[in-house]
Order: sequence, then structure tokens, then C-alpha cells
Amino acid sequence: MRISQLAAATDIPVATIKYYLRENLLHEGVLTSATQARYDDSHVRRLKLIRALIGTAGLSVSAARAVLHGIENPPDSRHELLGIAHQAATRPAADDVEIAGAQSLLARWGWGAEACDRSTQAALVQALQGLSDAGFNPPEALLDRYAAAMRDIAEADVEGVPTDSPEATMQYVVLGTLLMEPVLLAMRRLAQQSASFRRFGGSGTPESAGPAS
Amino acid sequence: MRISQLAAATDIPVATIKYYLRENLLHEGVLTSATQARYDDSHVRRLKLIRALIGTAGLSVSAARAVLHGIENPPDSRHELLGIAHQAATRPAADDVEIAGAQSLLARWGWGAEACDRSTQAALVQALQGLSDAGFNPPEALLDRYAAAMRDIAEADVEGVPTDSPEATMQYVVLGTLLMEPVLLAMRRLAQQSASFRRFGGSGTPESAGPAS
Repeated sequence: MRISQLAAATDIPVATIKYYLRENLLHEGVLTSATQARYDDSHVRRLKLIRALIGTAGLSVSAARAVLHGIENPPDSRHELLGIAHQAATRPAADDVEIAGAQSLLARWGWGAEACDRSTQAALVQALQGLSDAGFNPPEALLDRYAAAMRDIAEADVEGVPTDSPEATMQYVVLGTLLMEPVLLAMRRLAQQSASFRRFGGSGTPESAGPAS
Repeated sequence: MRISQLAAATDIPVATIKYYLRENLLHEGVLTSATQARYDDSHVRRLKLIRALIGTAGLSVSAARAVLHGIENPPDSRHELLGIAHQAATRPAADDVEIAGAQSLLARWGWGAEACDRSTQAALVQALQGLSDAGFNPPEALLDRYAAAMRDIAEADVEGVPTDSPEATMQYVVLGTLLMEPVLLAMRRLAQQSASFRRFGGSGTPESAGPAS
């Protein structure tokens, strides 16, 4: 198909497709003349993946390029492939972020610091620092309950990872990590509202809610 | 104290404090002359809360104002107070978002749609739509496992809500909801890396990982 047909098939403007070609996110078509090329289903599939990575998951062009590079040059292990996906989805940590706090938590939860990349550990430290700066210091027991719940979620995530192709693995990990985040956060708020309704009732302050001020 | 001392005590520039005064986020001090006012510890506490809401949690000025209004005019029930906090932290849903999909999930999980606000239900629908648009349709069983984990987290969240003052409740709910989100997301990724390491090993593709492509 021609680029105009590719645009129609994917609902992506020709100018955007040309941009992806220039940025080496999309592979070139087969030249049929000095100014025309022919594209095929592989371009349709790749464009859908690019749109999911950049448009939906919000990756930068360079992060998307790293993911696509990982798909085309898959590392030896699935674990490393997952690492590439996570790296693309995680802002790199500044070198001077002290991650000792994350390592002691990982040790307490038995998660194995050697399995976990530095940027994600730094993200945890910085997120906890943001809480602390706001005067909010969650007790260890609360973090431990969170960790148990997150372990359940991660087990489900990793069980579902397809292993039939690096492309399928990468797409699943990047989209399943990034695009599932707003789903999980919305679920948490709905669960909170449900739990709050059970604890505090719909109106009035029930006795069980403690003294009102 | 004078405004310059208030700025020093809170590490917030005088110009920013004046902006918060103009926006009615911070209450006026007691005038000591035509151009000077005296501030006290209540201003320090309020400024720390404003900074946590706007600077750390990323609320807009109008969302922060709604939270502060809720603290000063607390509704009858803690559940409604939590609703104000959630509303401030949730982008309002467009009227035309169809939330039937969220309601059937809430019914399946036994969460009680009457306890849950419309905007948060719409946020769940839109997040699931984003996944679906990317060609990623999570099986019901996966969402059910997520829901069970999120229920555990929400129970822990709501158990911890202090009930001694509306201010304490609101601060806990807004910060505990918003600022804990990056903590939870970082924990999920670390748990995934840990689970991936156990499943797929550190290098090479173990037999249990299925056929490599």
C-alpha cells in the first residue's frame, strides 16, 4: 500500500508517519520510484505499537526507540527484556540519589535487590521522600501491607507475560505496566470509597468513627 | 511574626505567600499598620499544608481551595469528607462518559456503586478504554486479582484515617491518596522485577520460560 493508504489504515496522519520514519521508529517501505514507497502489514502493526507506546503510554520518542530496539535485538533472557521495558517507562534516576532506603525495604520484603534496577529503587526512595517532606511518614506496617498486595499484583502480571515472541513480551510488559497504572489507581480510590462507606456510613458520624471534632 | 519571618519559617518566598493570600488559600494576618500584618503558627501550619497540596501532591489552586474549604466547613460525615478529598484529586469526568462498565465491575467485586463517586468510576472506564485502544484487553480474572489486592490496600488506608479533626482527616486522605500513588507504582515495578527474576532468571532463558522465538 502507499503511504496515504497506510495513513487511512491506521488513522495516523501522513505527516506523523513521515516523522516516525525520520526518527527511525518505523522501518522504510520498499521504494517503487524516487518519491514513492510501498508499505505492508508489518508497517501497520508497527504503527499501532508506536501509537500505543507514544500516544497511549506517553513514552518519549527516545524511550519508544529503546523499546523497539529491544524488540528487534532481544536480549538473552526474558528478565532482561522486562528490564528494557521498565527502563523505558522509568525516568532515569540522578546518580546522587541514595538508594540504601530502598534496599533495606527490598531485603525486608524478600524481593532481592539484585533483581531490581537502580532507577526503580530510586523512584521508590523519591516517592517516600515526597511523603516525608509533606509530613506524612507511613508506618512500616502499612508499607508491609502495601508490599504484600503489590506482590500479588506483580505475580499476576508476570504470570501473564507471553513468551512466544520478544515483540509480544515487550508490548505486554510496557503496556501492562504503564497503561494498567491508571486502572490500578482508579481501583484503589473506588475501593477506598467503598471501605470508607462501610466504616463511616453515608451520612452522619457513626459512633464507631470516633469523636467528631 | 512578620511576612518576612513567615517566609523564613516556611522556606516559601514572600511573593508566593502574597499570592496565596490573594487567592484566599491563606487567611489574612492581623493588621499592625496600613501595610504590615502579624502572622502566627496557624499561618505556618496552613502554608505547610498548601505546599503539600500544591507543590507535592500537584493539586491546582482551585482544587486546593476546595480541600481547604472542606477542612473549614467539614461535612457531617467522614465519608463525605473523604469524598471531597477524592474529588479534589480527580479530574472531573465529562458528562458523556458511560460508567455502566464500572458499575458492573463494582457489583462483581461487591464494592457498592452507591459508595463510589461518578468521576472515579469514569476514571476507571477511561483507563480501561486506554488499554483496549492499545489492543490490550485484560482478562476478567486478572482484574479480579487486582481488585482483591486493591481492597487490601484500601482497607489499610481507611483503617489509618485519623478522626480527631477534619484537618487531620483531610490531610491524611489527600496526601495518603495522591502522594502514596508513586510509592505504590514503584513498589509494583520492583515486585515485578523480583517476580520476573524468579520466573525467568537473571540471564539465559530457563526451560520453564517456554520456547524462545
